[in-house]
Amino acid sequence: MKRLLDPDSLRALARGCAVLGAGGGGDPYIGMMQALQATEDFGLVTLVDLDELPDEGLIMPCGMIGAPTVSIEKILNGDEGGRLREHLEFMTGRRVAALMAAEIGGSNGLVPISWAARMGLPVVDADGMGRAFPEVPQVAMHLAGISPSPAVMTEERGNLIVFRTISGHWIERLERAAAVEFGGCAASTEYTLTVAQARGGTVQNSVSLAIRIGEVLAAAQSDPVTALIAEIGAFRLATGKIIDVERRTTKGFVRGSVIVEGMGADAGKLIRLELQNENLVALERGRVLASVPDLITVLDSETADAIPTERVRYGQRVTVIAFACDPVWRTEKGIAVAGPRAFGYEFDYQPVEELAGATA
Amino acid sequence: MKRLLDPDSLRALARGCAVLGAGGGGDPYIGMMQALQATEDFGLVTLVDLDELPDEGLIMPCGMIGAPTVSIEKILNGDEGGRLREHLEFMTGRRVAALMAAEIGGSNGLVPISWAARMGLPVVDADGMGRAFPEVPQVAMHLAGISPSPAVMTEERGNLIVFRTISGHWIERLERAAAVEFGGCAASTEYTLTVAQARGGTVQNSVSLAIRIGEVLAAAQSDPVTALIAEIGAFRLATGKIIDVERRTTKGFVRGSVIVEGMGADAGKLIRLELQNENLVALERGRVLASVPDLITVLDSETADAIPTERVRYGQRVTVIAFACDPVWRTEKGIAVAGPRAFGYEFDYQPVEELAGATA
Repeated sequence: MKRLLDPDSLRALARGCAVLGAGGGGDPYIGMMQALQATEDFGLVTLVDLDELPDEGLIMPCGMIGAPTVSIEKILNGDEGGRLREHLEFMTGRRVAALMAAEIGGSNGLVPISWAARMGLPVVDADGMGRAFPEVPQVAMHLAGISPSPAVMTEERGNLIVFRTISGHWIERLERAAAVEFGGCAASTEYTLTVAQARGGTVQNSVSLAIRIGEVLAAAQSDPVTALIAEIGAFRLATGKIIDVERRTTKGFVRGSVIVEGMGADAGKLIRLELQNENLVALERGRVLASVPDLITVLDSETADAIPTERVRYGQRVTVIAFACDPVWRTEKGIAVAGPRAFGYEFDYQPVEELAGATA
Repeated sequence: MKRLLDPDSLRALARGCAVLGAGGGGDPYIGMMQALQATEDFGLVTLVDLDELPDEGLIMPCGMIGAPTVSIEKILNGDEGGRLREHLEFMTGRRVAALMAAEIGGSNGLVPISWAARMGLPVVDADGMGRAFPEVPQVAMHLAGISPSPAVMTEERGNLIVFRTISGHWIERLERAAAVEFGGCAASTEYTLTVAQARGGTVQNSVSLAIRIGEVLAAAQSDPVTALIAEIGAFRLATGKIIDVERRTTKGFVRGSVIVEGMGADAGKLIRLELQNENLVALERGRVLASVPDLITVLDSETADAIPTERVRYGQRVTVIAFACDPVWRTEKGIAVAGPRAFGYEFDYQPVEELAGATA
């Protein structure tokens, strides 16, 4: 047994998930409150390594799909995970052995814990991204050739949909359209996999990483931003003030941009972040400072708490950081699926450390 | 065994389905060609009465969902029915005993025959409407309180979706959104029912009725329009020329209006038809001549072939007829589900024979 996720771990996890969310995955505050309540009501959840589960054990990757702006108002009622599991087991004819966050970033890093508490199942110390990404097939399972089907989707009213598609692209299209009908977000599972498949098809140890990040923030005496940067090897793109936010909820996504004006040592800098649920690129007067699949996160300059894209607003004092994604995203396939061109940008991916070196 | 659906029956059926389609259900020409081919390749299909099947036999209502404008270009490849059946049987744990048209109107009256030929299953002499309607819950099964779930939807690429919803309204919303993603139409089954349930929950003998209509048209020597009107007890709203068509394919429906200018005895008349896949209302200078749930059909004045809403065009010489719907639609519940107010009109339903009496 790796560890029990006690309330302190969950609070740390929430802060870490926010940092790893790169702005997306939904505000972890709600996921944290739900996880705290669920573990109080139903008992603590065990975080396990893949090695602690049988090779043929079935892992249910899960979380919310839709626009984070909606997910903070249209919240889960707790039953969704049970329905996802029930139908996944019916469709596959197999029992689920453990849950896993489809994405560790944001609230989605915590959602499986609320559900696992109800089910008495463990959560795996791994996820599908090592961050958050906006689209369903942007997961390591997709890169590993694991089928997205059967995918199951449900929402608080009790409606449920099962998808068997010819590709992850079709899951994305169909689930997104259904999420829009449901009001903007829903709960879902895709890319069900065995423990053996998870060894090469997930980002491992991401739950522990998120908890460690939260613990570092909690332990930092004076300057949590600097402590965080040191812990995760991030690059500070700018410290300043948000002077413009353009944000719209459209077709199941949040899209828009944020402008940060440098202050102090960064006076005169003007950083533009473009977003689709997550922060996709950071630009300074047209020059790329960082881009997907690397992580760009907006931190509160005072507390180092990451601010999700649906919560950024004019006047916030922030520090924008960027850091390296999991190596799986830097492969040719990873860049094709989640690099800048996958989001419609017409430039090639460059690792954030190279871009930062060029700047320094 | 009631009868074998030989090529002559299928040709008659297609003409009858067009008349019963009230403009909708898709152009039966395509459904007829597919049924002719399928029965040539796989053998004739048997049309059976409910009484010929065991009470607990499972009936799969099925057809296409979406915009008829799309269905005439994005045609079925023939595999869809098999996939629907396979997944319906998996979800219910029961074998399908017979297929049934969800709606007898238009191409949807013929689609089950192509699939039944491939499966070696009979088709039931009944349907869900006795006509065509645009929305999923507008079926007698809904009025009878039969569950729409599990609904299954698929399309020619092989994607497949299963829906378990809290209401027929949600099936409509979710299937419509998925149909739009698929390009505007798809194949589906909803409201699976037993033979016993079908006795009070379907419109019976509608396949025979459609065939008889087609046979009357084929047998008519000189004036098929008059022969048809006599056969089905229809009212002639006007004979004239189409002078305006406004039609758009939007959100999985065809919507628009058609203006018919009277000629000959009807000179001076100006009839406006409003449509959502089907012809919903016929108006003469704001006065309602006929409305849903009664049937309004546009006939070629020469041949009496019904012209579906996606094929009407400027200059066609047409006769607009209206006739009584199945009694199930004239109940309080039927009118609530498919009367004028269900389509956003702010007037009460009046039977076409009363409206015609007031006019005469």
